[in-house]
Amino acid sequence: MYDCIIIGGGPAGITAGIYCQRANLKTIVFEKETVGGQIASSPLVENFPGFKSISGVELANNFYEQAESLGLPIEIEEVLEIIPGKINKVVTDMGEYEAKTIILATGAKYRLLGLPNETNLIGKGISFCTSCDGAFYKGKDVAVIGGANSAVTNALYMSNLCNKVYLIYRGDKLKCEEVLKDKLEAKDNVEIIYNANVKKIIGEEELEKIILDNNRELTINGMFISIGMDAETKLVKEMLPLSEKSYVLSDDCTTTNNNIFVAGDCREKKVRQLTTAVSDGAVAATNVIKYIENNQ
Amino acid sequence: MYDCIIIGGGPAGITAGIYCQRANLKTIVFEKETVGGQIASSPLVENFPGFKSISGVELANNFYEQAESLGLPIEIEEVLEIIPGKINKVVTDMGEYEAKTIILATGAKYRLLGLPNETNLIGKGISFCTSCDGAFYKGKDVAVIGGANSAVTNALYMSNLCNKVYLIYRGDKLKCEEVLKDKLEAKDNVEIIYNANVKKIIGEEELEKIILDNNRELTINGMFISIGMDAETKLVKEMLPLSEKSYVLSDDCTTTNNNIFVAGDCREKKVRQLTTAVSDGAVAATNVIKYIENNQ
Repeated sequence: MYDCIIIGGGPAGITAGIYCQRANLKTIVFEKETVGGQIASSPLVENFPGFKSISGVELANNFYEQAESLGLPIEIEEVLEIIPGKINKVVTDMGEYEAKTIILATGAKYRLLGLPNETNLIGKGISFCTSCDGAFYKGKDVAVIGGANSAVTNALYMSNLCNKVYLIYRGDKLKCEEVLKDKLEAKDNVEIIYNANVKKIIGEEELEKIILDNNRELTINGMFISIGMDAETKLVKEMLPLSEKSYVLSDDCTTTNNNIFVAGDCREKKVRQLTTAVSDGAVAATNVIKYIENNQ
Repeated sequence: MYDCIIIGGGPAGITAGIYCQRANLKTIVFEKETVGGQIASSPLVENFPGFKSISGVELANNFYEQAESLGLPIEIEEVLEIIPGKINKVVTDMGEYEAKTIILATGAKYRLLGLPNETNLIGKGISFCTSCDGAFYKGKDVAVIGGANSAVTNALYMSNLCNKVYLIYRGDKLKCEEVLKDKLEAKDNVEIIYNANVKKIIGEEELEKIILDNNRELTINGMFISIGMDAETKLVKEMLPLSEKSYVLSDDCTTTNNNIFVAGDCREKKVRQLTTAVSDGAVAATNVIKYIENNQ
């Protein structure tokens, strides 16, 4: 019987594990793919305080070693089902476990365009997060793909850094707030290309150019794909209230189930960053520690 | 004219600065004492993800170097006054500055007992935060000073780690919730000492023992002083709504003033940790970036 099972070994889950383990709770982390989660595929992290510049792999490795040094077990097992109760059951592809509490830290994934070469070039010109990676393209030319608030916000962010920003949208009218559209249209260095999709991504070691389905070729240094994220919340979709976009609704990492907590990108919130993920991990763990104390 | 003046160079302020600077905003940080804030006086940090074990000074130094590498100016100046407006004025002991936005990241300070030897031994046996430093005292004997919720919560936390925990309270009845009191009284390894104050702290290089005003001597490895914190919010006390304990009320790092934001320990919140401070810094900066974009 575990005090806490943490589902997801990204920054939120590992941080929660560190806090639970240091509080002497019997804790385990289940991760289905890679310790570090999304961060492990980021080539360079320069906005996490404490590290001037570190590769995502190295940072993920740091997380892992820190957890290991505290004796926190991290198992590569996929959680298939949660059966909630006073004692929760967690079914993985390897076995069945019991836990007084669960922290759901399953993350979210950026949507891809679905083109050949795309995943290869992630971190080599293709990115998703302007406040993470935008600064690497100062003075350069980039494209932002999408037409909703996040895409336009990303294009605005990049227009303050870049020589030239293309916003490429498949529709003929941006889906963002009017004020954002006005701002974007007022930018000298932004070109909005409507009714266009990326047809081909060109580059071997790094992104070189993209070809649109109107046959225009754009030579760019970076491309930010801003067509949404998918929250990894199918495990709890019958159990916890989710937002329209399937994030778990929770202000303080608690949920409607008093022994299930939520942390990181899978939680409904405004800013999804490493910093906010590790914060969630600490807050969720603090809630767990309190719950265990009150239900001993 | 600055886009953003950040008041306070602790983890929240520096993180906010890193985000603003990377977004190409003209930013400056004013710190009145030490870059790194409270963390700089912590001997060992083991609950910040990414660092297995790092001294507070080293971590603060990392923050500083990271800021510096991005060209973020950090000035040792004490802010004496904020004159809010469409353009805010910030008066320091060295000059007067203008900024479109302000992030208040002034922190909070733990209250001290006011005894000789006390500040010398901070980080050498004397601590304030059990989820930060509690794990260093596994299997050892510690005292917790105080009688409100935080003191009793800290004593419970330590009881799960320690050989023996003394809770020392000056009153004759704990001021915490009844359920916490019941939990604490049920612990075999906790002794509650009522009507007592610490009279003397003994130890040169590290804490060795304490003497109470009932003349009892306790040989302990650690002492957690849990008699409250003081938020450093006097700069805004006439300007922003504060909680009863003088923290700035804000759910999302915005305030009632649309170009003044708040981050870190000076904000009303449940969990005050390095992780939650850096998260606040990122969230406040994201708000600033949006404000600047919308008010250009």
